[in-house]
Amino acid sequence: MVNRRFGQIGRLKKEKIDEYVKLHADVWPDVKKMITECNLQNYSIFIRDDLVFSYFEYTGENYDADMKKMAADETTQKWWGYTRPCFEKYNADSAEAFYEDMETIFYMA
Amino acid sequence: MVNRRFGQIGRLKKEKIDEYVKLHADVWPDVKKMITECNLQNYSIFIRDDLVFSYFEYTGENYDADMKKMAADETTQKWWGYTRPCFEKYNADSAEAFYEDMETIFYMA
Repeated sequence: MVNRRFGQIGRLKKEKIDEYVKLHADVWPDVKKMITECNLQNYSIFIRDDLVFSYFEYTGENYDADMKKMAADETTQKWWGYTRPCFEKYNADSAEAFYEDMETIFYMA
Repeated sequence: MVNRRFGQIGRLKKEKIDEYVKLHADVWPDVKKMITECNLQNYSIFIRDDLVFSYFEYTGENYDADMKKMAADETTQKWWGYTRPCFEKYNADSAEAFYEDMETIFYMA
């Protein structure tokens, strides 16, 4: 059962766009495994210019705990070592340095 | 069966953001009915500042034909009469005046 749908936006450094796309053409199997173990599914990432948008669904019961589990995974940390330097802050006043949650304003099944 | 997943980005006029959000809190039933009839499902719209992102899945066999069907629907045309003036072009060089398709760079089930 999908308990929550996420839309997240991020802004890439212009000189890192190609690298980010290439990395996601071949995501490490253990990173994907951890995504599944942390109860995320139907995960898409889209790009337009320097903006990336990710959509995924959460099927677990404790999102914060699952995100902590993901953040503690050594392979995921290594992966983020490649992907995170591709980002710049979405806005100067952004709280997050990578993807930021967006607000849902419409849903229909 | 989902044949294609869409991510689309749009930019709202700053003075029309509230109106766009309010419209989508109460989408007309006949507009929703047409969305379903045109084989779109699992439709979310997210917002961050003046950017809106929509995600939906297409389950039909001919997307262009279904979009033509939607565009020919009188109620949908009336609805667009309210929603489309909320947009400005995403970029000066944008081909579309409203939502634009983004490119998919990652998917996992």
